[in-house]
Formats: sequence, C-alpha cells, structure tokens
Amino acid sequence: MKLFDGGRAPNPRRVRVFLAEKGIEVPMVRVDMGAMEHRKEDVSSRNPLQRLPVLELDDGTILTESIAICRYFEEFHTEPALFGRGAVGKALVEMWQRRIELNLFLPVGFAFRHIHPAMREWEVPQVPEWGEANKPKVLAFLALLDRELGGREFAAGDSYSIADITGLIAIDFMKPARIVVPEELSNVWRWYRALAARPSAGA
Amino acid sequence: MKLFDGGRAPNPRRVRVFLAEKGIEVPMVRVDMGAMEHRKEDVSSRNPLQRLPVLELDDGTILTESIAICRYFEEFHTEPALFGRGAVGKALVEMWQRRIELNLFLPVGFAFRHIHPAMREWEVPQVPEWGEANKPKVLAFLALLDRELGGREFAAGDSYSIADITGLIAIDFMKPARIVVPEELSNVWRWYRALAARPSAGA
Repeated sequence: MKLFDGGRAPNPRRVRVFLAEKGIEVPMVRVDMGAMEHRKEDVSSRNPLQRLPVLELDDGTILTESIAICRYFEEFHTEPALFGRGAVGKALVEMWQRRIELNLFLPVGFAFRHIHPAMREWEVPQVPEWGEANKPKVLAFLALLDRELGGREFAAGDSYSIADITGLIAIDFMKPARIVVPEELSNVWRWYRALAARPSAGA
Repeated sequence: MKLFDGGRAPNPRRVRVFLAEKGIEVPMVRVDMGAMEHRKEDVSSRNPLQRLPVLELDDGTILTESIAICRYFEEFHTEPALFGRGAVGKALVEMWQRRIELNLFLPVGFAFRHIHPAMREWEVPQVPEWGEANKPKVLAFLALLDRELGGREFAAGDSYSIADITGLIAIDFMKPARIVVPEELSNVWRWYRALAARPSAGA
C-alpha cells in the first residue's frame, strides 16, 4: 500500500490527521503540488481528476477522495471510532462532517481559489465576485457552529470525529483565504484551539 | 419518526429514491418549498440551515443532510446494501458518491442557482459568470464518467448504490439547469436510462 500525499493542501492533510489520530503509518509518496506534479503521469494515471490524496492498495485498487480513504482505514482500525458509533452516532457524524464540509470548507476554498493571485492557474476562470460572495457564507456558518458548540465539546457530540478534522483543516485554510474567525465566537475558538493542540494537528 | 420532505428538490428526492430501493415507508410531512415554507418555524426550529430533508426520530433527535439520513436507515435495513460491502466496497461507494456529488451534482446546482431567474431569491447574490463557469466542469466530468462506465454497470461497480442515486438526481437536475448530456456519451446514457427506468426513480 502507498499513499500519494500532497503536502500542505487541505485534503491530503485531512487524511494525515486521521491516520495520526488512529496511530496508523502508511508508506507515503510525496507529490509536489506547488510544482504541479499532481498533473503528471504518476497521479493522472491513478486519478483522472488529478487530485490528491490517492491511496494505492497492494492489489492495485485505487482509492481517491480523502473521506473515502479515511473510511477504508476505519474498517480495519476501528478504535478510536472517528465516524461515530451506532446508527444515530454514525448519522450525526455524517451530518456534521457534511455540514462543515459544504458550509465551511468548500466556501473557504472558493474564497481562496477565486481571489488569491497564486490560484490563477488552478482555478480557471477565477470569478472574484464568487470568491467574495462566499465570505459572508463562511461567517454565517461559523456563527451557527458557535451556538451549537455552546452545548458540547466536539462538532458531532462528546467525541472527536472526522467532522472535527474537517473543521480543523477548514479553519486553517481560512488563513490563505484571508478570512478571520470573529473574536466573539468564543465556542468556535475554544473548539479550534483544542483541535489544533492535539498532536495529530501537526501531521 | 417523521420525514420533512421537500417535494421536487433534488436532496429530498435523493432520500425518497433511497427509501424506495430499500422498501422502507416513513411518515412524511410535506413542506412546500415553492412557497418558501422551509424558511418557516417548522423547519427552521429543526434545521437552522433551513434545508430539507429533515428526519425527526421518536426521541426528538434531528438528522439532516440527505446522505446522513440514508446512512441512518442503512444501519437498520442492511439489504440491499446501498453504501457498499466490505472495506474496499464501502470506500469505492464513498469515493464515487463524493466524485459525483462534488463534480456533477454541485456544479449543476451552481449553474441552476446562479443563472435561472427563478432562483434570484434563493441564491443571493447570483453570480451568472460563476454559473456559466460550471457548465464546462459538468461536461468534463460526464466525459470522465462515460469512460469509467464503459467498464461496469453502475457508478461504483457491479451493484447499484447511493452513488447511482446521486447520479440520477444530478442528471435530472440538469434539465432546469439547461445542460444536456452530449449524445456521444453512450455509456452515461445507458446508465442514466437504466437508473431512470427503476421503479424507485418515480419516488
């Protein structure tokens, strides 16, 4: 098995944080996304979407999409459970993973990719108006999340989960997107600081 | 248990098709999205994001996000398995469900919401340039999907899955978005026609 990793980009990091929480080590192939290596043969032949990460299993099966790769590992390394426990627990993790991905991570990504000059080759065409339109969406969702986090420790309940990992990478992604978590959202700040203080956050 | 359903909108339909494939009947509360009823108290108090569907369990637990609701039912009604079987099977379904959602369903939605005059109140601000930018993304992904479907019956392998349901609702959503599947993509057409011919498609 080998994991084609993309360094600082958020989706590759999402898998690395997940693996660190599980204590799993996987042989890595480092791909330099800054040098556009993910558009070359090594990655393109494995993932026609030319995105990272990519997991190649020993029988040649290719898995892409960070959440799909995480789910694969969850099947073998069940503890700690990062996709929830029981029917309701699993559904709540799925719900919050999706809420955070669709209402925070994606809008932050649009703000970054459609406005930042370094993204001109990556996002064609850049539509700065669309990038700007996402900033209030990010802030509105953070306000909602702050109210939710007033009543519990983690995004989907009392246990750390993949929903928190998506939250961590989304909030760190706000830095290059030049959006700041408002100071008054103290529950989001408490939650983010706790996630960022875990050893896995350095992965 | 009751399911707050949103009629013709794609996400409510995704859950209804899933339930029909499983043969599950759930009491429904019809919400008229055309009359903006999803922004009123009944839905807002249950889902602050004001989106449908919403599942309320007998103990008052609220589940939102169509895929999370489907995953909840999958736990109790395991057959037919619509989220895959085994670690690799489950990961491949997750991968294709996400690929189709992120590269087909979402771009079709952006093309619809940012261009269609009826969406002016729903998507603020509408950015028509962004809507247009999504049309070639949709076509590029359909071409990739056509190559993939040359080698197998369904999106994630030899069995029908939630990835196919997302494909069905995405392609049907292309009609109001005014994007047409190119005639030469014969594998996509064969696949779509088979999905649309299943009794569940009428749900």
